[in-house]
Amino acid sequence: MITLYYAKGTAALAPHILLEEAGADYATRLVDFAAAEQRSPDYLAINPKGRVPALITPKGALTETPAILAYIAQVFPGADLAPADPFGFAEAQAFNLYLAATVHVNHAHKQRGMRWTDDEAAQAKMREKVPANMTDCARMIEEHYLKGPWVMGETYSMCDPYLFVITRWMKVDGVNLDDFPAISAHFAAMQARPAVLKVMELHG
Amino acid sequence: MITLYYAKGTAALAPHILLEEAGADYATRLVDFAAAEQRSPDYLAINPKGRVPALITPKGALTETPAILAYIAQVFPGADLAPADPFGFAEAQAFNLYLAATVHVNHAHKQRGMRWTDDEAAQAKMREKVPANMTDCARMIEEHYLKGPWVMGETYSMCDPYLFVITRWMKVDGVNLDDFPAISAHFAAMQARPAVLKVMELHG
Ligand SMILES: N[C@@H](CCC(=O)N[C@@H](CS)C(=O)NCC(=O)O)C(=O)O
Ligand SMILES: N[C@@H](CCC(=O)N[C@@H](CS)C(=O)NCC(=O)O)C(=O)O
Repeated sequence: MITLYYAKGTAALAPHILLEEAGADYATRLVDFAAAEQRSPDYLAINPKGRVPALITPKGALTETPAILAYIAQVFPGADLAPADPFGFAEAQAFNLYLAATVHVNHAHKQRGMRWTDDEAAQAKMREKVPANMTDCARMIEEHYLKGPWVMGETYSMCDPYLFVITRWMKVDGVNLDDFPAISAHFAAMQARPAVLKVMELHG
Repeated sequence: MITLYYAKGTAALAPHILLEEAGADYATRLVDFAAAEQRSPDYLAINPKGRVPALITPKGALTETPAILAYIAQVFPGADLAPADPFGFAEAQAFNLYLAATVHVNHAHKQRGMRWTDDEAAQAKMREKVPANMTDCARMIEEHYLKGPWVMGETYSMCDPYLFVITRWMKVDGVNLDDFPAISAHFAAMQARPAVLKVMELHG
């Protein structure tokens, strides 16, 4: 049995959708951010970094969104959620890495600026640049990485639910999606998938 | 033939060492940061993100350090540079993801603060927190992730050259390595490896 620790609308939404697409038998556990449960001793025993997602597997806990997505793809090979050849797999990973190490990080400068400075005026300055940075990231994805209709081309993969999560963040971060037709079409196609509809009932 | 685009002392040092450990037949191309070559049209055609490392493979270009490291491990399976089982592989990936999405990002707030704000006073504030953030990351690695003697335990893997690069950054970022004996022992063990000695001649 697999258990996903998540909070609503966070990066954990990506592996949540992927578990559903894989037809996995899994449980979920909501981590209550309003009560700072991510920093409780019980949760820190699962993920010492105090973040979601975390995935409990029969062999132990896993963290970091791209690592969890690749794990799900690998343990459900029949669902064909990642390219099998090393180059294709690396391309899919590189896409997810860009989301994790650049786009997610840019987004986090809006609400989590305290990670990088305790100075509130400096946090406000960082917040100001979030719309421009997220728009630059949208352009990079639109022009260079989203092959269409899915991220990797004709085949749906572990990249698609992650881009879906990031696109939701782009919208609230002030990116004008009308300027990015490929991302917009991808977002609409994701919203039509049964797995997404089902999981969104929980994430709201 | 494989070609690694790199700049000295950057994250590209990690795949550079791993190519050497794998016994790969590869070439290198230095990207001249002093001349802003990473933003030249020629380089942007290789990596539109304008960063190193990039790895040119027979099937095309790859970016993002953890994706490149996993690719090298997968195309040289005989070198045994990543766990073969999905859980072990995911654990190794999660370690590299933490370095890319958290530790590297914290380090970048020292010299690359302009990514997140144009305000110089705010950039200075972010710089102030880098030593504390990098020390927190060192503690996280020391206490929770570095199994020893190598990151994944008895077997050297794609995680080790990446931790080596990050440890070098920790030192210049003001982390007192004397407080972290496991990381210090790892750093010393890395410096004794022939692959590291050879590659460091180029990185200086
Ligand atoms: N690098 C991690 C980042 C995870 C992360 O930052 N998650 C956020 C939610 S999107 C979180 O748990 N934040 C809680 C906090 O900062 O206290 C990943 O890709 O999974
Ligand atoms: N997420 C990327 C980050 C790569 C990165 O930021 N590389 C730095 C050197 S360590 C770079 O190329 N900086 C050049 C610049 O910012 O202009 C990775 O993990 O490879």
